[in-house]
Amino acid sequence: MNKNFFNYRIYFEDTDAGGIVYYANYLKFYERARTDFLRQFNISQQQLANEQKIGFVVRKVAVEYLKPAKLDDEITVSVNFKLESSLIIKAYQEIKIDKQILSTAEVDLVCINIEKHSPHRIPENLKYIFNV
Amino acid sequence: MNKNFFNYRIYFEDTDAGGIVYYANYLKFYERARTDFLRQFNISQQQLANEQKIGFVVRKVAVEYLKPAKLDDEITVSVNFKLESSLIIKAYQEIKIDKQILSTAEVDLVCINIEKHSPHRIPENLKYIFNV
Amino acid sequence: MNKNFFNYRIYFEDTDAGGIVYYANYLKFYERARTDFLRQFNISQQQLANEQKIGFVVRKVAVEYLKPAKLDDEITVSVNFKLESSLIIKAYQEIKIDKQILSTAEVDLVCINIEKHSPHRIPENLKYIFNV
Amino acid sequence: MNKNFFNYRIYFEDTDAGGIVYYANYLKFYERARTDFLRQFNISQQQLANEQKIGFVVRKVAVEYLKPAKLDDEITVSVNFKLESSLIIKAYQEIKIDKQILSTAEVDLVCINIEKHSPHRIPENLKYIFNV
Repeated sequence: MNKNFFNYRIYFEDTDAGGIVYYANYLKFYERARTDFLRQFNISQQQLANEQKIGFVVRKVAVEYLKPAKLDDEITVSVNFKLESSLIIKAYQEIKIDKQILSTAEVDLVCINIEKHSPHRIPENLKYIFNV
Repeated sequence: MNKNFFNYRIYFEDTDAGGIVYYANYLKFYERARTDFLRQFNISQQQLANEQKIGFVVRKVAVEYLKPAKLDDEITVSVNFKLESSLIIKAYQEIKIDKQILSTAEVDLVCINIEKHSPHRIPENLKYIFNV
Repeated sequence: MNKNFFNYRIYFEDTDAGGIVYYANYLKFYERARTDFLRQFNISQQQLANEQKIGFVVRKVAVEYLKPAKLDDEITVSVNFKLESSLIIKAYQEIKIDKQILSTAEVDLVCINIEKHSPHRIPENLKYIFNV
Repeated sequence: MNKNFFNYRIYFEDTDAGGIVYYANYLKFYERARTDFLRQFNISQQQLANEQKIGFVVRKVAVEYLKPAKLDDEITVSVNFKLESSLIIKAYQEIKIDKQILSTAEVDLVCINIEKHSPHRIPENLKYIFNV
């Protein structure tokens, strides 16, 4: 049974002089959850790069910031993937503390050949992952 | 005469194992340009916080990634502010190398009272800045 | 029974264009371990700041880099505190993968009054923590 | 005539919830100055990697933190290189605001073959740079 949410702690490194998590750093947590989701299927970007010469790069993000996360908070980051086309997957994500939504994100990822830096069809054997 | 674009260098700290600038780090460059734009008017967020107890927090960002920036590149980041309402300003931004657009961003910023963390009307004496 | 080592995963955010963890980012992992160690005693820097107006700031670090950590690695970060004086604690730390040491650090932390930014004696009720 | 000091601005991204620059981020500024120093000689790590398969990796750092840098500060970072051996160069660095020293660093860098990740003699044509 696969999980589609992951918990992360907020440390000093994540905060800024405003006393809250710096706005760019939410993108780090969104990416950690996407990576940890794939890790459950024994898929790492490292290995995709080495073995199949493919990778997923972010083409577009839209983030809403509703409530700030603060030092020592433990946040829960969810991810739901959807296959958009033969080249693009979309991630729908949320950051929560308990029931409260702090932030939402939509992330478009494009499959590329990492040597030519050109678009590449998403391999058939990966597709099932993005429709769970 | 005010500038609405600023140059920044890409260092190792900005890159990731993919060999290009990490996707969250573009938000740092967008923020540097907004800050440097305001600095021309002798406005700093520090001083707004101390003197008027107000600040601008990011409510929403939408970023497109078109071409990657790489180590040692010098990028140009532009910013055009537009007053959206009595509470919200919107920044339209681009990252370029020469004529080539690497990324675009739309950023919604809300004016808040930093002590109550509640929305606060944008002070009249700041408004002229956001309509240049 | 308290733990003095903690596991962390390496994500894209931690790496640089050299394909390994960026040298400054090891300091983030060292700090996470110090924070997680204190959390076991229900001590957070946030709470020390709010309740006692004290904090610990880094005065000195000496880091050795022996082997690089890479994307997807899971590292173990240890911490052993030693009371140096009435003002200073010293953290002896290591980063390992399995039995292999990747990095070592010695970190001097000074207790300060966070309002006056002046040195402050380490409270008696904290001292026992640093001699485990 | 070559410069051995460089100015950088402190932005929100550099600070933490303590209101000052996060301790790991000083290492970023130290690295920017080393890179900008080399750039004057038309040397980039990218190009050394591509053309000669060599790179410089940090083996050791010792940093002292004397006074904190804060949001909006403009800091000056100096660098003086010294050839230690046929494999190692040492950088002596300081961060200042006006005449005041905020931090000092000693950084040991080892020359490596980036493909084999093994030590490599510093090329003769680079040595003159590290003795200025």
